[in-house]
Amino acid sequence: MPFADHIRICNRWDPARALPLVAGERRIGLLRRDNAELLRRFPAVFGVTEGAVYLLPAGDAAAVSRAVAAVVDTLVAEHRLPARRGETFDVAARWGEPPVFRLDRGAVPFFGTRAYGVHLNGYRRDGGELRLWVGRRAPNKEVAPDKLDNLVAGGIGNGHSIAETLVKECHEEASISASLSATAVPAGAVSYRMENRFGIRDDVLFVYDLETPADFVPRCNDGEIVEFTLRPAAAVLERVRDTRDFKFNVNLVILDFAVRHGLLRPGEAEYLEVATGLHRPLD
Amino acid sequence: MPFADHIRICNRWDPARALPLVAGERRIGLLRRDNAELLRRFPAVFGVTEGAVYLLPAGDAAAVSRAVAAVVDTLVAEHRLPARRGETFDVAARWGEPPVFRLDRGAVPFFGTRAYGVHLNGYRRDGGELRLWVGRRAPNKEVAPDKLDNLVAGGIGNGHSIAETLVKECHEEASISASLSATAVPAGAVSYRMENRFGIRDDVLFVYDLETPADFVPRCNDGEIVEFTLRPAAAVLERVRDTRDFKFNVNLVILDFAVRHGLLRPGEAEYLEVATGLHRPLD
Repeated sequence: MPFADHIRICNRWDPARALPLVAGERRIGLLRRDNAELLRRFPAVFGVTEGAVYLLPAGDAAAVSRAVAAVVDTLVAEHRLPARRGETFDVAARWGEPPVFRLDRGAVPFFGTRAYGVHLNGYRRDGGELRLWVGRRAPNKEVAPDKLDNLVAGGIGNGHSIAETLVKECHEEASISASLSATAVPAGAVSYRMENRFGIRDDVLFVYDLETPADFVPRCNDGEIVEFTLRPAAAVLERVRDTRDFKFNVNLVILDFAVRHGLLRPGEAEYLEVATGLHRPLD
Repeated sequence: MPFADHIRICNRWDPARALPLVAGERRIGLLRRDNAELLRRFPAVFGVTEGAVYLLPAGDAAAVSRAVAAVVDTLVAEHRLPARRGETFDVAARWGEPPVFRLDRGAVPFFGTRAYGVHLNGYRRDGGELRLWVGRRAPNKEVAPDKLDNLVAGGIGNGHSIAETLVKECHEEASISASLSATAVPAGAVSYRMENRFGIRDDVLFVYDLETPADFVPRCNDGEIVEFTLRPAAAVLERVRDTRDFKFNVNLVILDFAVRHGLLRPGEAEYLEVATGLHRPLD
């Protein structure tokens, strides 16, 4: 399948079926209409109209979070939402603004609030050949079990900075020392918006590249990745093109790496579609 | 001024004032309504309706080009269009497709056909410090005289490949040998769409990075660039942020370089706006 299919898969959503979730006068999420309908039963928390869903509780982030969490609990009990992940994400109109509230990670797609992650491309040059570290996700992962992954990837939980998340995930997922992860180079962001069975994922991935030393071997601490392999970058790119073996969004991160490092060449028919398809402008 | 102002400047256009230019059933350009009105006088060449402008001549690219060129000549004589540049660009719905016709470069914004260029970031590492080559455009340039520029940049004229254009412009603008320009690494594409006084620029820039050897000094052959200087990348970035000294689109190419090489850090307030603002998806 073409490279661009991965981009299309990660950008499949229907604006006609989506309503903005509004706090004050700003959009902080995007609800599928069927999900918005489910919120009519909670008129103290959500005001559902034809054109938008309004977040009603006043008060600080803690108070709003409690009000929303009670709704989430009810919907989880009714199997409208997946089980709580026990990890919360900040919800705000823009990255870096104080959170309006905090939301369990499992409920994020239901409300279509923007989620942020960190993805690390680990690479090595062996005699002129570029190689990439590839992880395999554990079979018991909630999302994308058994799929191939970057060297390190993780969501940015509430209260954590990008840099903290990177260091923490590098340690937990691959036993990368703080002194080594400090040499990771930020290289941009991959962004996409896609519908899944629970709602809409509106994701931004902060991308880093890490050149690993010749004697470095990643080792997983937390059981999220079961195996690491070092593969020629060209073979990884072929695997991206020909299969769905990589986690859906990891394909995009690898394509971004391939574009930035000249592995994908401008002469290729899909070049422009890929180069201009990985960084959806944020609205 | 913020970095993102440069992105906004390069993406200012009003969809409500624009009509698609259609050949067969595909859009090949984008006309401002006032420009579309001017084409009503040429009913053998353009069919102007409320919702679109249709390119009417049948025949091969040469025949269509002649029909359009006659219209361009009339509009140039009436000062509706800038003088011919004497260089033609291919016009097609998508990059890589056979051209529907060829259009003088000066008339490209009037018709809003997509134009393609090549921009080369020339850089050097001096003892850990990254430096960028900066060119100054000649005072007699049609577009952006006296402005600062990349090491090399040029439009892709009809019949030329990206690689040919890169080698040719490297030689003409900076006396870069073919063996050195062959080491340039493709690093993606910058895309934007902006209104100017003649119409709409719908531009795609193929971006390359070239690490120049310590003994390399660029020298201009064709008079388009009058001076080259090697400056610390951080100072270049400050100049981008604080001034409009660089040609409008060169700001975007430098920001892209800064994002890819970790000069702009994810902690910066504008990071995401920049990282997701430089690669407008093509429609």
